[in-house]
Amino acid sequence: MLADMTRWKLLIEYKGTPYAGWQRQAGLPSVQQKIEEALFAFCQQDLRLHVAGRTDAGVHAKGQVAHFDLDYGARALSGVDLAKALNAYLRRESISILSADMVSNEFHARYGAVNKLYTYRILNRIPPLTFDQGMMWHIRRDLDLEAMRTGAAFLLGQHDFTSFRATECQAKSPIRSLERLEIEEIVLDQGREILIHAEARSFLHHQVRNMVGTLVLVGDRKWSAQQVKTALEAKDRRAGGPTCPPDGLYLMRIDY
Amino acid sequence: MLADMTRWKLLIEYKGTPYAGWQRQAGLPSVQQKIEEALFAFCQQDLRLHVAGRTDAGVHAKGQVAHFDLDYGARALSGVDLAKALNAYLRRESISILSADMVSNEFHARYGAVNKLYTYRILNRIPPLTFDQGMMWHIRRDLDLEAMRTGAAFLLGQHDFTSFRATECQAKSPIRSLERLEIEEIVLDQGREILIHAEARSFLHHQVRNMVGTLVLVGDRKWSAQQVKTALEAKDRRAGGPTCPPDGLYLMRIDY
Repeated sequence: MLADMTRWKLLIEYKGTPYAGWQRQAGLPSVQQKIEEALFAFCQQDLRLHVAGRTDAGVHAKGQVAHFDLDYGARALSGVDLAKALNAYLRRESISILSADMVSNEFHARYGAVNKLYTYRILNRIPPLTFDQGMMWHIRRDLDLEAMRTGAAFLLGQHDFTSFRATECQAKSPIRSLERLEIEEIVLDQGREILIHAEARSFLHHQVRNMVGTLVLVGDRKWSAQQVKTALEAKDRRAGGPTCPPDGLYLMRIDY
Repeated sequence: MLADMTRWKLLIEYKGTPYAGWQRQAGLPSVQQKIEEALFAFCQQDLRLHVAGRTDAGVHAKGQVAHFDLDYGARALSGVDLAKALNAYLRRESISILSADMVSNEFHARYGAVNKLYTYRILNRIPPLTFDQGMMWHIRRDLDLEAMRTGAAFLLGQHDFTSFRATECQAKSPIRSLERLEIEEIVLDQGREILIHAEARSFLHHQVRNMVGTLVLVGDRKWSAQQVKTALEAKDRRAGGPTCPPDGLYLMRIDY
């Protein structure tokens, strides 16, 4: 890193529906590409963003974090001005830079993360979605939350999560330590919202969506809660439940 | 009304963004048109909906009510089946029939309403909107809620609301009785949401949006709270504040 380089940390919110995910992909719009293009428009430098959690197509973020190094010469640049400028270039996107902060050169968005919170949102009612199309999973059948909570308890703690990782997952180890898997209910005038909160230092690819897909099988009375334990112990992706839709998944917060 | 006619009451939710408002307009998509087309597809009858509150272009509803009369012959039809069928025909729209209920022939969606609740949503933060584009009014400047509450208090009760009615408003009398005008604050991780709840038996055209536009002038410190009283007493539309955007307005509930 050169002497004049400053490391910046961005806190980012986005609606994932229009994007092929965080990561750049040839010919498809991605969140990374849109923000890197905004950075280029702002400072005429090809900068590369390092992100905390690469979200899949259609997955949303309320607290994504990325960092990059900028040589802005001797000129003063405030975080407020940087965020404002990037948001101006992003005005046609559903991406918002919530804050930009100068950080030390030791900060790393991905390797420095000690905890991540994902929340999965389900709208549990019979009538179709209006406001939240693409932003929640719509389930008509009444889910048994107590059974889901019993099933979720089997997944807490340190386990080999092979049964809940995508077959294309590239992590070296399938061992992860799940600190929280909580099912919250919000009663609405029409039906209810079910929130599933998952916290861990890191997750395997599709782990949250595969856990949610499995717990919904339990809520739907297609699986017993005990079958979640059986699936976990099988250490085989074919034993786990299906991957649920990306629509309801939000990367909420990353702690450093 | 013929002997075989049944009167049905629909409870309706819609995201208003794609529509030119509730009411049918030549060449423009409207909520009324979409639901009447779904009714025609369902029963091959040209039925006319009578609505409780005609919402403007871009205004949303979580609890709109409409009624219509259906001659379904001797066949049995349940509300659950009717709602399900209409929702199937509306699947490409952001309109959802929350419920359909048989009501007595005396029920009238518009004339029977004794109270209406509208809620106006503001996102008060610096970064742009992502998830709620078209669904909230985005205000960057920090609003003074206490001053807004003082201003709102002047509007409560029975008044001549000429200063807050659209010049094209067709109501015979400008007198309305405002039962509630409450400003609620929800603190978010990023900024805050400000909700303005307005209740009355009926409202004049643009009344809620003109009152909100005026209260925001107060929150913005461009007007004193006392000026709301002066504006009300002027009984002149030019004395009231501007009409705020439709984006944040929701017809929440109608009581009979």
